[in-house]
Amino acid sequence: MDYDRIILGIDPGTNVMGYGLLGVRQKKPELIVMGVIKLNKFTDHYLRLRRIFERVRSIVEQHLPDELAIEAPFFGKNVQSMLKLGRAQGVAMAAALTRDIPITEYAPLSIKQSITGSGSASKEQVANMLKHLLKIPDEKMPDLLDATDALAVALTHFYETGKPRLAAGPKNWAEFLAKNPDRIARR
Amino acid sequence: MDYDRIILGIDPGTNVMGYGLLGVRQKKPELIVMGVIKLNKFTDHYLRLRRIFERVRSIVEQHLPDELAIEAPFFGKNVQSMLKLGRAQGVAMAAALTRDIPITEYAPLSIKQSITGSGSASKEQVANMLKHLLKIPDEKMPDLLDATDALAVALTHFYETGKPRLAAGPKNWAEFLAKNPDRIARR
Repeated sequence: MDYDRIILGIDPGTNVMGYGLLGVRQKKPELIVMGVIKLNKFTDHYLRLRRIFERVRSIVEQHLPDELAIEAPFFGKNVQSMLKLGRAQGVAMAAALTRDIPITEYAPLSIKQSITGSGSASKEQVANMLKHLLKIPDEKMPDLLDATDALAVALTHFYETGKPRLAAGPKNWAEFLAKNPDRIARR
Repeated sequence: MDYDRIILGIDPGTNVMGYGLLGVRQKKPELIVMGVIKLNKFTDHYLRLRRIFERVRSIVEQHLPDELAIEAPFFGKNVQSMLKLGRAQGVAMAAALTRDIPITEYAPLSIKQSITGSGSASKEQVANMLKHLLKIPDEKMPDLLDATDALAVALTHFYETGKPRLAAGPKNWAEFLAKNPDRIARR
């Protein structure tokens, strides 16, 4: 399994947590594995957090991802549910922090936008597009869409980090010419 | 330092995180050490989370506490700040979960109540009461009250776990008599 780069995508939730591993070989992304961590069998909040930490750590130890991309909703129903979600994200992040893995967050809308071209796409549409883009055979498609959601974050991160950037450069011709008057040929 | 039991108290915050270690010897609590983890020098959110995780883990490795007690406000200003606080709590908890340390949460009000007898006590009053209860010399009192707040959680946990409980018993005489009609002496 010689990948140039491995991206771990996580869709954190307090009932089900999805994960997806994407390997990049010759600049092309491919599915390594995806799945879910089921948490609803634990009624105890701390056992859930512990389960998340242990599973994410074991995924990190086994696959040694280079980057972690997580789906992060910035608004929630209420402060109580956001505190719980924050804790779930926190323990998952801690598992990555133990290995110095850089973390990037993506909002749900920008993930849908990046994968399907539409910010209002359904989870099924995201899953179908991933199946198409990564040529995933039927038998490898999961029952729970938390897994494809997590893979979608990983693929979004791959697309976003591959974009050419003009960070320090001029934004447009007008700015370029204003900064470089000597480059204007006057006749 | 032969303690029968060591309790780590944490007052999580996203700017300053306080910690306090309480050792119990012959059923009496005493201060081991308290301090703060300053986070405001890091502008990056992940560096803060990482700092919390690393410091809490190093405290756990060094002192091997048996229990973790954390101060947990259940309401916040907004969902965004609660998500951040949840993450800070999550990484601190993860550091304890790596060592199977049980976690108990206490609301700020019940901590103040437990230490000073009043739920509306100030941080200074809590600090002064801790100084008195644990006979802490002046030179060991911290500048930042996040440290005494954390020690207060640890001491609250010591008090709470030492209380006798009537969990399965009757709540009052009326209930007891209703359940035990044969115990009523009728004349």
